[in-house]
Amino acid sequence: MPPLKNDVLLRALLREPVPYTPVWLMRQAGRYLPEYRATRERAGSFMALAKSPAFATEVTLQPIERYGLDAAILFSDILTVPDAMGLGLSFVDGEGPRFARPVRDEASVRALRVPPLESLRYVFDAVSQVRRTLDGSVPLIGFCGSPFTLACYMVEGGSSKEFRILKTMMYREPELLEHILAVNAAASVAYLNAQIDAGAQAVMMFDTWGGILADGAYQRFSLAPMRAVLKGLTREAEGRAVPNIVFTKGGGGWLGEIAESGCTAVGVDWTVDLGAARKRIGDQCALQGNLDPHVLFATPRQIEAEVKHTLLRFGDVTEGAGHVFNLGHGISQFTPPESVGVLVDVVRSESPKFHKASA
Amino acid sequence: MPPLKNDVLLRALLREPVPYTPVWLMRQAGRYLPEYRATRERAGSFMALAKSPAFATEVTLQPIERYGLDAAILFSDILTVPDAMGLGLSFVDGEGPRFARPVRDEASVRALRVPPLESLRYVFDAVSQVRRTLDGSVPLIGFCGSPFTLACYMVEGGSSKEFRILKTMMYREPELLEHILAVNAAASVAYLNAQIDAGAQAVMMFDTWGGILADGAYQRFSLAPMRAVLKGLTREAEGRAVPNIVFTKGGGGWLGEIAESGCTAVGVDWTVDLGAARKRIGDQCALQGNLDPHVLFATPRQIEAEVKHTLLRFGDVTEGAGHVFNLGHGISQFTPPESVGVLVDVVRSESPKFHKASA
Repeated sequence: MPPLKNDVLLRALLREPVPYTPVWLMRQAGRYLPEYRATRERAGSFMALAKSPAFATEVTLQPIERYGLDAAILFSDILTVPDAMGLGLSFVDGEGPRFARPVRDEASVRALRVPPLESLRYVFDAVSQVRRTLDGSVPLIGFCGSPFTLACYMVEGGSSKEFRILKTMMYREPELLEHILAVNAAASVAYLNAQIDAGAQAVMMFDTWGGILADGAYQRFSLAPMRAVLKGLTREAEGRAVPNIVFTKGGGGWLGEIAESGCTAVGVDWTVDLGAARKRIGDQCALQGNLDPHVLFATPRQIEAEVKHTLLRFGDVTEGAGHVFNLGHGISQFTPPESVGVLVDVVRSESPKFHKASA
Repeated sequence: MPPLKNDVLLRALLREPVPYTPVWLMRQAGRYLPEYRATRERAGSFMALAKSPAFATEVTLQPIERYGLDAAILFSDILTVPDAMGLGLSFVDGEGPRFARPVRDEASVRALRVPPLESLRYVFDAVSQVRRTLDGSVPLIGFCGSPFTLACYMVEGGSSKEFRILKTMMYREPELLEHILAVNAAASVAYLNAQIDAGAQAVMMFDTWGGILADGAYQRFSLAPMRAVLKGLTREAEGRAVPNIVFTKGGGGWLGEIAESGCTAVGVDWTVDLGAARKRIGDQCALQGNLDPHVLFATPRQIEAEVKHTLLRFGDVTEGAGHVFNLGHGISQFTPPESVGVLVDVVRSESPKFHKASA
């Protein structure tokens, strides 16, 4: 693999000194970009796009080319893993994901298996192809869904406002849910490690739905299986550390516990003050976040003010601290692409002053 | 009005000694009850039900008769107020509320007025009729939506996953949103005070959507207008204090600030540990909550364990402390009615031991 020219993201995640705050955006390769929509049309469907290494590479690179972000993140979907388990994934336009065979009873739960890596080969091929195409310009982030978030979709059969079927299983048959979570955790370890083998230089675990859980249930059903995944991860590849990021949306109340899970960095959503988060976590982990994605619907001047405010809330990046600028959730498909340009420019021009103490 | 026989709720809210933990459930008069569905059918539509004092009284009383709860809460909807502002409210089955005339531009915002109380007469009539029918058995809680939550629906025109239109206004034209909030706050003061005049013995403010806000934006756009409402509230009626409850769903990170808003009690959702919440708030306010509504889909034994756990997490109700048992959100329409019976029985039988220190 070609040597890495810009390793600011990796160093920030590892809390090493960097000259400025690196920036990338969750869902940066996506529908808000006209060039993405064009490729998506050529591919024919979301699944065709995600399953083609060539198309996936193309859209992964698009935001890098347009904005000069500090990291690429593989274009894919967290549901590739349950799809490979044979649950029959499809995407209905405007309705989100659907599983033809949701996992709701004892028999279907016990029948779940860690899918053979071969069935996910297209993901690892995409990782390698992106790495080659990036040619060392910026690092590539691989990712997976958290075991609990995957279970939400697997049990419910799709997305949901309240995940009643999932929660009924959780309260009535917790051991059944734990079995699903154990399979998901084992599958996620193999999946992320295969992405690392294929060239991913950092990995992220998206816990989109952990925030719907009661305190106590979160620790048991979301955090514990994430900890199991982290434990199994490859920590070094190509002669350098492979940092990881854990992000529970709505997990502001559990940041301290997440930071003790064994992760390198903690994703933070916009409901949390970044300064308060930093105080709670100390310098145990780097922080990633946390601008409200809807700030990008404001004027350039307002975006500038909000980006500066976020940098200021994290504050001076002193020795042992690390901040990766990001949104607090995936970018909205309705975002004006120019807004992202403003965001990146402001992070680039304003963040160096926060790094004087360490860089 | 007839004298109150069971004032355990009012005393618990005021952090006075009580012999047991009072219990009521958000949305207790609702679709999970077959008797509610029968009345709803006779009324013809949700709006017809809500706008008829006779029907509203009937359904308000149903859960009291069935379960012997410690409080009635008026059957109504938080959107009665913007409806009275002339926004044209309707409910599409399975889709939730819709406003025919959403408030999205400068002209429509500036045209907003505090609605004349006469246009909400049916609500106050329902309050009086419920009070007479309750005949002093338990207190009646009146309520309103928070100024911000009302604004969410008024600007968006209905419910939403992300409230993009609302948030775009908030970030682009914050003073426009603040104007809406000021009108809503003034309307809410008049509305709650009229409910108190009509016989409401406690009032609650539902901030269903404050939790979607960024830290900072929450304080400005949700908490500040709620504080304005609290400031204007009648504090005494019929010779006794009228306590109030503020509940921001997803507001776990701001409990300390909510407690300093001038409210009597703070509602807590299930994502927060009640013991931790109590520690943060101290004995400044009573706490109300916080069982996950989906616990009611479990077996009686499991419900019992979770209810006991909630009581235990609050702990001993020592002098100056107050706990009102409730769910952490409205009860699901799919809840088996027997489950509520189990919950109430367990609170009744298990809670007295937590009151030995004060009662």
